[in-house]
Amino acid sequence: MYIQAVKSEIVSHISYFVAAKAEAFVIDPRRDCGIYLEMAQQVGAKIAYIFETHRNEDYVIGSVELSKLSGAKIIHGPGLAWKYGETLIDGSEYKVGSMKVKAIHTPGHSPDSSCYVLYDNETGDTPFAVFTGDTLFVGDVGRTDFLGSNNIARMSDLLYDGLHGKLLALGDGIIIYPGHGAGSVCGGSLAERDISTLGAERQMNTMLNLDREAFVKFKVGERHEIPPYFKTMEKYNLEGPPILGQTPKPRGLKPSEFKAMMEKGAKVVDIRSPPGFGGAHIPGSYNLTTNRLNNAGWVIPLDAEVLIVAEDAAGVEFASRNLFRIGYDKIVGYLAGGVEAWYKEGNPLSKIDMITPSILKTMIETGEVVEVIDVRRYNEYDEGHIQSAKHIYLGRIPDRLEEIPKDKPVAVICKTGSRSSFAASILLRAGRTRVYNTLGGMDAWKKLGYKIVF
Amino acid sequence: MYIQAVKSEIVSHISYFVAAKAEAFVIDPRRDCGIYLEMAQQVGAKIAYIFETHRNEDYVIGSVELSKLSGAKIIHGPGLAWKYGETLIDGSEYKVGSMKVKAIHTPGHSPDSSCYVLYDNETGDTPFAVFTGDTLFVGDVGRTDFLGSNNIARMSDLLYDGLHGKLLALGDGIIIYPGHGAGSVCGGSLAERDISTLGAERQMNTMLNLDREAFVKFKVGERHEIPPYFKTMEKYNLEGPPILGQTPKPRGLKPSEFKAMMEKGAKVVDIRSPPGFGGAHIPGSYNLTTNRLNNAGWVIPLDAEVLIVAEDAAGVEFASRNLFRIGYDKIVGYLAGGVEAWYKEGNPLSKIDMITPSILKTMIETGEVVEVIDVRRYNEYDEGHIQSAKHIYLGRIPDRLEEIPKDKPVAVICKTGSRSSFAASILLRAGRTRVYNTLGGMDAWKKLGYKIVF
Amino acid sequence: MYIQAVKSEIVSHISYFVAAKAEAFVIDPRRDCGIYLEMAQQVGAKIAYIFETHRNEDYVIGSVELSKLSGAKIIHGPGLAWKYGETLIDGSEYKVGSMKVKAIHTPGHSPDSSCYVLYDNETGDTPFAVFTGDTLFVGDVGRTDFLGSNNIARMSDLLYDGLHGKLLALGDGIIIYPGHGAGSVCGGSLAERDISTLGAERQMNTMLNLDREAFVKFKVGERHEIPPYFKTMEKYNLEGPPILGQTPKPRGLKPSEFKAMMEKGAKVVDIRSPPGFGGAHIPGSYNLTTNRLNNAGWVIPLDAEVLIVAEDAAGVEFASRNLFRIGYDKIVGYLAGGVEAWYKEGNPLSKIDMITPSILKTMIETGEVVEVIDVRRYNEYDEGHIQSAKHIYLGRIPDRLEEIPKDKPVAVICKTGSRSSFAASILLRAGRTRVYNTLGGMDAWKKLGYKIVF
Amino acid sequence: MYIQAVKSEIVSHISYFVAAKAEAFVIDPRRDCGIYLEMAQQVGAKIAYIFETHRNEDYVIGSVELSKLSGAKIIHGPGLAWKYGETLIDGSEYKVGSMKVKAIHTPGHSPDSSCYVLYDNETGDTPFAVFTGDTLFVGDVGRTDFLGSNNIARMSDLLYDGLHGKLLALGDGIIIYPGHGAGSVCGGSLAERDISTLGAERQMNTMLNLDREAFVKFKVGERHEIPPYFKTMEKYNLEGPPILGQTPKPRGLKPSEFKAMMEKGAKVVDIRSPPGFGGAHIPGSYNLTTNRLNNAGWVIPLDAEVLIVAEDAAGVEFASRNLFRIGYDKIVGYLAGGVEAWYKEGNPLSKIDMITPSILKTMIETGEVVEVIDVRRYNEYDEGHIQSAKHIYLGRIPDRLEEIPKDKPVAVICKTGSRSSFAASILLRAGRTRVYNTLGGMDAWKKLGYKIVF
Repeated sequence: MYIQAVKSEIVSHISYFVAAKAEAFVIDPRRDCGIYLEMAQQVGAKIAYIFETHRNEDYVIGSVELSKLSGAKIIHGPGLAWKYGETLIDGSEYKVGSMKVKAIHTPGHSPDSSCYVLYDNETGDTPFAVFTGDTLFVGDVGRTDFLGSNNIARMSDLLYDGLHGKLLALGDGIIIYPGHGAGSVCGGSLAERDISTLGAERQMNTMLNLDREAFVKFKVGERHEIPPYFKTMEKYNLEGPPILGQTPKPRGLKPSEFKAMMEKGAKVVDIRSPPGFGGAHIPGSYNLTTNRLNNAGWVIPLDAEVLIVAEDAAGVEFASRNLFRIGYDKIVGYLAGGVEAWYKEGNPLSKIDMITPSILKTMIETGEVVEVIDVRRYNEYDEGHIQSAKHIYLGRIPDRLEEIPKDKPVAVICKTGSRSSFAASILLRAGRTRVYNTLGGMDAWKKLGYKIVF
Repeated sequence: MYIQAVKSEIVSHISYFVAAKAEAFVIDPRRDCGIYLEMAQQVGAKIAYIFETHRNEDYVIGSVELSKLSGAKIIHGPGLAWKYGETLIDGSEYKVGSMKVKAIHTPGHSPDSSCYVLYDNETGDTPFAVFTGDTLFVGDVGRTDFLGSNNIARMSDLLYDGLHGKLLALGDGIIIYPGHGAGSVCGGSLAERDISTLGAERQMNTMLNLDREAFVKFKVGERHEIPPYFKTMEKYNLEGPPILGQTPKPRGLKPSEFKAMMEKGAKVVDIRSPPGFGGAHIPGSYNLTTNRLNNAGWVIPLDAEVLIVAEDAAGVEFASRNLFRIGYDKIVGYLAGGVEAWYKEGNPLSKIDMITPSILKTMIETGEVVEVIDVRRYNEYDEGHIQSAKHIYLGRIPDRLEEIPKDKPVAVICKTGSRSSFAASILLRAGRTRVYNTLGGMDAWKKLGYKIVF
Repeated sequence: MYIQAVKSEIVSHISYFVAAKAEAFVIDPRRDCGIYLEMAQQVGAKIAYIFETHRNEDYVIGSVELSKLSGAKIIHGPGLAWKYGETLIDGSEYKVGSMKVKAIHTPGHSPDSSCYVLYDNETGDTPFAVFTGDTLFVGDVGRTDFLGSNNIARMSDLLYDGLHGKLLALGDGIIIYPGHGAGSVCGGSLAERDISTLGAERQMNTMLNLDREAFVKFKVGERHEIPPYFKTMEKYNLEGPPILGQTPKPRGLKPSEFKAMMEKGAKVVDIRSPPGFGGAHIPGSYNLTTNRLNNAGWVIPLDAEVLIVAEDAAGVEFASRNLFRIGYDKIVGYLAGGVEAWYKEGNPLSKIDMITPSILKTMIETGEVVEVIDVRRYNEYDEGHIQSAKHIYLGRIPDRLEEIPKDKPVAVICKTGSRSSFAASILLRAGRTRVYNTLGGMDAWKKLGYKIVF
Repeated sequence: MYIQAVKSEIVSHISYFVAAKAEAFVIDPRRDCGIYLEMAQQVGAKIAYIFETHRNEDYVIGSVELSKLSGAKIIHGPGLAWKYGETLIDGSEYKVGSMKVKAIHTPGHSPDSSCYVLYDNETGDTPFAVFTGDTLFVGDVGRTDFLGSNNIARMSDLLYDGLHGKLLALGDGIIIYPGHGAGSVCGGSLAERDISTLGAERQMNTMLNLDREAFVKFKVGERHEIPPYFKTMEKYNLEGPPILGQTPKPRGLKPSEFKAMMEKGAKVVDIRSPPGFGGAHIPGSYNLTTNRLNNAGWVIPLDAEVLIVAEDAAGVEFASRNLFRIGYDKIVGYLAGGVEAWYKEGNPLSKIDMITPSILKTMIETGEVVEVIDVRRYNEYDEGHIQSAKHIYLGRIPDRLEEIPKDKPVAVICKTGSRSSFAASILLRAGRTRVYNTLGGMDAWKKLGYKIVF
């Protein structure tokens, strides 16, 4: 048996390719699905099934495309008006090569959420692993807020049932393969580690140690953000997304062409690191570093034309592929020769002033900075922040611009300096001129032993 | 300036990617054209032009697809009813980055044949290279028989004009970049070496040392074969070929599925080496080794469903990609797990008896072999063959089966043993049972000092 | 946390690279250890520790070399006269990044055998995984026969203690990462699946369901083979193996050079598939297909000069790397251009006649075959064989040649046809001339429903 | 025939691998010479010869190591006290596969300089290419100043003889394969294009259109810099360099370890782009961007311990490999996690203020900048500079620090902003605090139409 996790960087999505005896299945394939066909070729197997753990909301699923290319059957959970594939019922069993897969319906994260239990028939009829999608993560459980605040309690109650009544009942010695790893917004605080067992989770996952009442109460109290692009993902993943046949291949553009496309409304995504972007960038561009590209969904509409600025060809490819995974199909060009080509022609540049936490501390103390904006997520802010920091989640900055002083010095901070660089780029676009980005962020602030409040 | 030759293995086609100062052009792109986009990204250039040296007849050109992906303009020669692109006139000039490209019309191989002269403006207005398509090769010139035997003399005369009146007039110090390398069927006897200059060719290429009369006479006397699939290539390359968006991704099949597709008429291409194929293969399959895949065009229609047998995943990819380049779009599957998967289930196998030249010699002397069939090209046969060998070009075997004895021992021979393995596989399919393949072929026969006649 | 299994093909050895928070450790590194340094670079971590689960006997361990290159500390178990590294005591703990690793001494497979329990301190002080080396596999436990037959009972008793007293006591929800996967000779019948938990093993691993007495009795009754090269591996892995700095880079040889080296005593390893080898090979060569290269240890001394024959450059690299892993340091050359180069010069060839099981059955029935030799392992033979088959394990053929008829037809059979091809090549070298290899082997024989006995 | 140029990025060195009929030779192999062995495997050839065009002074040659690995014979020119290899005499001929190589001694660049003329025997006895080393480049000829100013006239005279008496005499239609491409310091102004012919050079290379007197006068008037590390290269390449067996594999270091090694004297090479370095870097580090790494030789002794800062693992590998090529063998570590790991711990950062040419112009006009330092090479400066700019070649800055004002604003400028970033980093290390780097450099200044003087 061959089990291979395939991670999609920016949304921390994990799909799985599993093969045994010349047949294979895939759990939640990503949109650029050629990788599964290659794996199938490598191990000499045909892909018989595609199992979806739920209608995903944070990325475009690759099931329909992979099915076309491989002939595999698509299976998903009950309760939604699917436009493709087959709907399982609780307890459905599937034979794949020498394996058996049993579906269990565990609604809560979404109405259709299902887990897939894996049996290795060669050594008996005992399961040894389960693909848990967004029902159970390592160190956390799935969000229950996607049906709106009215339904959180009900969905959390269902989730509790699925976790305790079905999943944990499988026994401690079951490996779990979740749908996301650390960094995803589909749970609250996922562990850094991707791999675990039901036994390990039963002991270490605090969400599994609450009773039903406390569990539902906790879930109802959670505060999550829903980026605007999620609505389109849900539609795509219910009805079948656009099939492009391949990932977008943006064209190399000369600075003059690049400028012309910007003037016609194309949005610029600069994926360089915060020091590089802060040092010099094209005026009007967004800084979305590689592992944070999904935040594009907060400021750039899915149907916008997108231009890439990167250090090298690998960066262009990375950005195109990952933006494509979350539904951007018009990645129209990239700056050939990078930002150097831009400035070699004498074009204007923007900068962001970068500071360290120790400089920030001094600036706060001397009053040199008027406002510190903490752009992290609610739970991160709640776990400790600078006393004078105002919390505005980065995705909310465009809506709450009036709260941020014009013409006065403002420092932005996040955990390490990447998301705050994105926030700073939004502020610059919005005409703010005196913006400091804090390199090292709260991680460094804490390391230095500076005071935090809760 | 960056000049990169891109070779397509089986038809020995050479395309070129040339970039300077953020702009690039491509000469005769191959159908799986992603490679040029990657090169453009690597060097930070945009592809501005695609130049076609002529309507190619031996592979599907990638111009239309590459143009769609890159925005490049397609240029080709005059005299044909093109359905896409722009037609040049003799002497047209094009600026690409810091380079100048000048087209010269050199009909002969085909009516539209054109060469592209490259100027490096940075160091003056003197040309230094020319892309010669199928007009001039290293060590040979292009075929002139594609318009039919009535036109060979006229086309050869035109070719002579182009070579002497236009190409050689550029001066000795011009590098030539031809459209094919050794192994192509587009010329007579191309040199092993891909690179040369007009000066070197003027001295070493015997075709350039004939006067007009002798040149035309030689060309009229040449004997070439035209595989049936060339007609479709000409149509594709005039009107624009089917756009698949990506190379075919055949599905992995279990032996039972493979067998079922064979029964429905799918053709089996086994690309393993002659010893492997001869040792054991699926009854009814063709042996088309990697560098000879284009011979598929003699026996498998372009619209047939094709199945692959290979040693590994790389072999499947190689076969799919290369068959796609010559117009096979229905590469529907491959045998998952290779021939081992086939025989592990107890399925039947065929074999070809392999012999060395020394064994063949003995068999001829003792009368153990009744007929030796030499399947090489005319010119190869004419350059020396076994006394008793009958010449049947491999592509003609299906038409001349009645000339080959049934139920009596027959030995096939080519240069090394690969094409004869293909020929042997045709004979086996046709019901011949006592077929020997001569490993080492005429190369070994000659090395051993055995007698040849002319 | 980042856990990556690194598999070494031919001995089915699995090593592990584990990183968290800029520090990493490696379990049982393979000899060509650059891959761990690359992984460390990829995740931005330094390798702090190398943990050995035991003095390995079937491959050369890469600890000393990796330690030199990375600065990592080597840790191994107690009870042996180590010439390098540090010796743990039962219960020793190590901090690596944000992880804790706890060593537990579990002698049995070898006196020093130890397991390493992994704690993820970020979510508590509960372990979630254990690296079990050759103490516990998926579906089996380690061999206990390496100290000689006198000690099997004692070692098995110790192993029982370690498994039940220490390993299983960790709890069901612990993932196990064993030192070998399917195909290894270090256990009896390892599962195809590499991944499991203590809970899953407690239920499905039959060896864990025996009581102490039955367990020891079973182990004492096992029949294993010990290839002669294991002795050298043990010495290397105790004292530190030769450091070559890189994998051997064999030279490309022309057929004449190749022949000259063969005449001076170099041994030829032909890694092509059984049909290819059987179809045509260099007289005197061994057929050791890619996944069976370790069987070289039965017939080729570690200090012999070795020559490679392969289909392509990747095959040469594969063979060199894998032979290097089991201690062959004199991989001196490969046949440039492969077997085709050989036969293009008219050199002599050998063949092995290949048959299918259905042909074998007929041959047995008609008496055309005098002897069927089954070359599989004891336990495979015991699980079902052809009635008339004589069992000679492939490694024992050189010692038992006199049992095999000369000048009479002999058929060899294994599971699928690969090991029997090796066996056939030994017989050919030994002067046997009428040897048939059964493609498909017992797998196909059983699929066809032919009779087996036990 | 297969001719493959292998470029070594930073010194613009071009080596060549040439194979025909199972034998190959290499011209001027680079130190990390595994690539030639891989090519030899790919084409199925053995490397028979290594030809050195001269004792190289700007990089460590890989001949000795490649010879050990391949068994190839090393050939070099006369006139030096070589400690390895064989010395040719003018006119020596070598057979390699189906090729002939003829050596011609063309002293001038160095006493031993030789060119290698390539004959393709298959099509006659006419040469078609020549490997010219540092004797003739595309658009330039080699330097003649390495034996000291006393000898320039004599060496230039010799070079003139070789060029006109021997090289050009080969005829126009000869392809030239030089030892360096654009960007090398071994000539004056090499063309961007790597490929040319003697005919094209005769027309376009201005150095070939001078008569002897003018030629020698021009050469005597050239001003070149000799980095201090060249002395060691000359010694290495005469006597045989240290053999490491593989490229250095620096260890990943945590910020605290990195800091500790800096404090013990290790030098920090930061290869990120100028905006990234300028935005934030480790105090005391040098900015040596990827294509300018060879400038390390001006400030870092070859026996110093070197630490790398890069964006990613590929950058670390690139830096290690390229520094190794110019003789740095102690690449001891890299910052694991990059500069982000550094600032996440709250460590201090340095910055360089970046300006555009338009801002520089304003600053000059308003007197905001006191001094503009132009750090380009002599010939670049002479071809046009800012009126008030003072010329100090970047390699001379450490020696001429006293000419640069302390505590007053200084702007550095080069062609595009990369070398000036290196210069700025030297100034920061030397305690200068108000240093501006001009992004876009003189390229942008000219594009904007600002005034230049000569």
